Amino acid sequence: MNDDIKKYRLLSQIDSPADLRKIDESELSELCSELRQFIIEHLSNNPGHFASSMGAVEIAVALHYVFNTPQDRIVWDVGHQAYPHKILTGRKEQFPDMRKHGGISGFPNPNESEYDAFVAGHASNSISAALGMAIANLMTPGKEKDKVVAVIGDASIGGGLAFEGLNNASNYKNNLLIILNDNDMSIDDNVGALHRYLTKLTTSRRYNKWRYRLYNSLKSKNIINDKGRGVILRFNNSIKALISKQQNIFEGLNIRYFGPFDGNDISKVVQVLNDIKDMEGPRILHLHTVKGKGYAKAEEDPTTWHAPGKFDAQTGERLKKASAQDAPLWQEVFGHTLTELADTNDDIVGVTAAMPSGTSLSVMAKKYPDRVFDVGISEGHAVTFSGGLAAQKKKPFCVIYSSFLQRAYDNIIHDIAIQGLPVTFCIDRAGLVGEDGVTHHGQFDLAYMNIIPGMIVSSPMDEATLRNLMYTSQFIDKPFAIRYPRGKAVNHDWRSPFKQIEVGKGRCITDAESDVAVVSIGPLGNDVQRAVAELNNEGIRLAHYDMIFLKPIDEALLEVIASKHRHIITLEDGTVKGGLGSTVNDWLRHRNLSNKVTTLGINDIWVHHGSVEQLRTDCGYDYDSILSTIKRIVSKS
Amino acid sequence: MNDDIKKYRLLSQIDSPADLRKIDESELSELCSELRQFIIEHLSNNPGHFASSMGAVEIAVALHYVFNTPQDRIVWDVGHQAYPHKILTGRKEQFPDMRKHGGISGFPNPNESEYDAFVAGHASNSISAALGMAIANLMTPGKEKDKVVAVIGDASIGGGLAFEGLNNASNYKNNLLIILNDNDMSIDDNVGALHRYLTKLTTSRRYNKWRYRLYNSLKSKNIINDKGRGVILRFNNSIKALISKQQNIFEGLNIRYFGPFDGNDISKVVQVLNDIKDMEGPRILHLHTVKGKGYAKAEEDPTTWHAPGKFDAQTGERLKKASAQDAPLWQEVFGHTLTELADTNDDIVGVTAAMPSGTSLSVMAKKYPDRVFDVGISEGHAVTFSGGLAAQKKKPFCVIYSSFLQRAYDNIIHDIAIQGLPVTFCIDRAGLVGEDGVTHHGQFDLAYMNIIPGMIVSSPMDEATLRNLMYTSQFIDKPFAIRYPRGKAVNHDWRSPFKQIEVGKGRCITDAESDVAVVSIGPLGNDVQRAVAELNNEGIRLAHYDMIFLKPIDEALLEVIASKHRHIITLEDGTVKGGLGSTVNDWLRHRNLSNKVTTLGINDIWVHHGSVEQLRTDCGYDYDSILSTIKRIVSKS
Repeated sequence: MNDDIKKYRLLSQIDSPADLRKIDESELSELCSELRQFIIEHLSNNPGHFASSMGAVEIAVALHYVFNTPQDRIVWDVGHQAYPHKILTGRKEQFPDMRKHGGISGFPNPNESEYDAFVAGHASNSISAALGMAIANLMTPGKEKDKVVAVIGDASIGGGLAFEGLNNASNYKNNLLIILNDNDMSIDDNVGALHRYLTKLTTSRRYNKWRYRLYNSLKSKNIINDKGRGVILRFNNSIKALISKQQNIFEGLNIRYFGPFDGNDISKVVQVLNDIKDMEGPRILHLHTVKGKGYAKAEEDPTTWHAPGKFDAQTGERLKKASAQDAPLWQEVFGHTLTELADTNDDIVGVTAAMPSGTSLSVMAKKYPDRVFDVGISEGHAVTFSGGLAAQKKKPFCVIYSSFLQRAYDNIIHDIAIQGLPVTFCIDRAGLVGEDGVTHHGQFDLAYMNIIPGMIVSSPMDEATLRNLMYTSQFIDKPFAIRYPRGKAVNHDWRSPFKQIEVGKGRCITDAESDVAVVSIGPLGNDVQRAVAELNNEGIRLAHYDMIFLKPIDEALLEVIASKHRHIITLEDGTVKGGLGSTVNDWLRHRNLSNKVTTLGINDIWVHHGSVEQLRTDCGYDYDSILSTIKRIVSKS
Repeated sequence: MNDDIKKYRLLSQIDSPADLRKIDESELSELCSELRQFIIEHLSNNPGHFASSMGAVEIAVALHYVFNTPQDRIVWDVGHQAYPHKILTGRKEQFPDMRKHGGISGFPNPNESEYDAFVAGHASNSISAALGMAIANLMTPGKEKDKVVAVIGDASIGGGLAFEGLNNASNYKNNLLIILNDNDMSIDDNVGALHRYLTKLTTSRRYNKWRYRLYNSLKSKNIINDKGRGVILRFNNSIKALISKQQNIFEGLNIRYFGPFDGNDISKVVQVLNDIKDMEGPRILHLHTVKGKGYAKAEEDPTTWHAPGKFDAQTGERLKKASAQDAPLWQEVFGHTLTELADTNDDIVGVTAAMPSGTSLSVMAKKYPDRVFDVGISEGHAVTFSGGLAAQKKKPFCVIYSSFLQRAYDNIIHDIAIQGLPVTFCIDRAGLVGEDGVTHHGQFDLAYMNIIPGMIVSSPMDEATLRNLMYTSQFIDKPFAIRYPRGKAVNHDWRSPFKQIEVGKGRCITDAESDVAVVSIGPLGNDVQRAVAELNNEGIRLAHYDMIFLKPIDEALLEVIASKHRHIITLEDGTVKGGLGSTVNDWLRHRNLSNKVTTLGINDIWVHHGSVEQLRTDCGYDYDSILSTIKRIVSKS
């Protein structure tokens, strides 16, 4: 690495933004090229979020060039776009280990660097957080002049939280600068009226350019000051509305609007930032960027290149595609199964929040485009909207990643569960997700769903059970949650016929007259099966039960388990507190039974990034840990 | 009642909207007067949400008059405004028992009436739910012509969920009608840029009137059809933007905008609804109403009259004000204590989501207006914004009602807890709240906070402990939750000096060599104290421990409790699952101890409305239930 870096003439000299600010403005364009080369070189080997960061190179360079970071604060939204920021802020040496176990995180994280102002794993939080910072600065002697910048994408700004931030931005005195990094995309195609609105705004670029020049020329001649500017701006906006047939929403919310400008033109971005950075009051700067900029394949197909995996940097060929013999992804089982169900049940509709490909709901969308709703980054709306569909007798399958579903918690409780509306929640990425790390693990859903009265909470161990749970949920007039993890399912041959299963009924997978039994929920049961086989070879018998349902918990089965086995090991891919472990403990205490219990799962800690296997090892429930725990307990008993 | 109702000439004839639709349009104005009289008569005796419903009389009458309910669906937002709707839809006889135990709910509830289309206790959900319904209708043979109307207030529409609904309203074909009931208020004064924007819109009423007339005149002469109308509308909006110096945000979001009109003019509202009800595509109708309309005192002071309690219908005198000798409300202890703390710690700031008076944060706002932030109905933003303030070294106290804090669950996890930011969450209305019922009980917060790593979760038994928890939280560099209930605290003389307390340390309140011990958290401990005294008189000794902290739980104290007392009764004002009960069970199992445990609290059920005491009786933890549970266990042991 240390030698390698020398081929980057400028980048090799930059160990912090202070170094960057020593570079002559005329060289910034070359630096941007180097940054792109650096990102291509490393991400082709060490997969990550590619296209967003390629598009945001100029924004990152310009911000650190113009602003006095880290005293000035840059709040990145989501952080898919933050790799150039990481490289410029002293982490280029660690970049090859990004997202790896023990390496730097793929997202901004204040625990990692003083340049990372706020956590940025979930979309739409930057405006609210940065507004808090900007107001705090004005209240703090000595910090009044420090700047705060929020950088938000055009998909993220459609989230309700971002709107709440915008709606509050002019309530109190502050000098927040919001940069709208508009690359016309989320991971999938962007949706929503605001997005179409932004597209229209872009078409009037020429007009805005003219207005901006007029303003700067008047100001440079001292004809106008910042305050007088409001009048011109408003008059001009009206003219613009007339000629371009549209109005400016941001100005309607009392936020000064600048743009759109070409966000991949480094000179322009630096110039505009210099012009507006000292202005008072909340402002929004609309920059238009190209997702994947500088890498032709990514520019052509930014959805695929959002996170492309490994690729050949020269040819752009993506490596290690799934082969046909592999087991399918869990999400694929979901997508194809839902499409099959939709074939025979016209009432079935699918709802996703900006993740049609990431959840494979796209499979159904292809066949039934009118029955699939992608609502954009709006998890709360996705759930309440599903409630409305269910109230008028549709059967919605609402598929959202576990950690994002946290954003719809009240919607689940208030808009669905209180009314008992029959929405099926398909909770993807449940449990540890690996490289995306602490903000993305689905560690809480079992526990937070478990406490909602009347909610059905389930998790399949295999594809057949996932299919049967989905099939069954059609006939159950209640909210029904099905959680499954990221990654590969278990069988090649998974298209089993549908069978209705009894809600709240678990199963015995391996019956044994053993002192110890494992009670699992979800695909981790497959590791237990492997352990059962290995122990069997060693002459050790082990019973194994797959609960399938956390709620209602199968009390009859627990009765059998408790009576047959003195020591119960619970196993779940999520927090033990409030999950299966606690549920078994509660039930035993309620029945006044004294079985011993060992609970495996996530033990009330934050889990960082790395491969799922490494993280399971850290948490003590990878295959080896499961096996050694069983052996330890068996040997004691 | 049956005789009484006869004095209402028109209302007495209306048992359902079908009856209403038989009335001549010329008599609707009189009906509105009768409805107001009816509401005044009953709410003066049976307290409820007064001012909002008074303002929405014409909207309710007009909607049921023009639309074919219940086939056409009306989705009320919040539902503070829905009393006239309840009265018109077959529930006038039950109106005197509204909000009482066993009576009808104070909010729309589909389990109560086919006319209540969706649950409406938490703000901002109506657009999303109604959009789902409107789209479902178009997909359902025979329902394509059925209408769906969302009625949302000008405060609710500032919530992020409402924005997500608006942003999605034009994504798919639908004929949703949104009525913006703009009374220029939430419970407290309204905040936010959108609200200021609406105020400006209102000032251009004359222009909109003209545009609307022009359009109707062209249409009646067959000069223009609905489609051609778009052109005129857009051109007119541009003119309007020019002359009124503002733009229409809703049109920017592709939603046709009509208004503003006088929403208390029944003829006008009926006429406009008739004009636009059959139009295609999403539309918003902006109606301006007066909160408290028809009752002078309420019009003058709508905040006080939002929910005024009992009053003299003739004089408007409010009855049964708190007397000086009473214990203060918990919220008042919070409000005054925070102000005291702010006196000596300049970093302290307060954040509320539209509830300055409802949380008594107004006490601090009065003294330190620049250090209190009311962000409107935006709980998610309130929390993330607090995170931003904390990131720049302010010490935010973010006070939100328990059931509303559910809306900020991901913000708590992602924006606060992962970073360990030292925000103090003051969770008001925790536990059963009484008459507001199922949507408003704070039954989940202990459980959902308990599973967040690093979160401190506490609840005081008395004012001194609340004060000391708040005081202590200033010095702890972690997120810190303090929950306390609605209603009166316990002591008159509560302004005790501050004392720092040890985080995670509970206390023994009554030490006793007893077989049975009660372990409580929160103010319910006072009932246990009463039981200890009563039992003592009967010669029965009972130990009592107040945990103060659910997390970190005091393991040393649990060790003592488990060793001294064979049977532990846990007691909490919230769900046992995941709360104190589960935590004690988990801990005992982990330590392999076989104490018996009885868990008192909410047992995984929805709790409806009535007085807090009645509801606690239903849940089995009112004073008598606690006492009889203890006696039963003592007599067995």
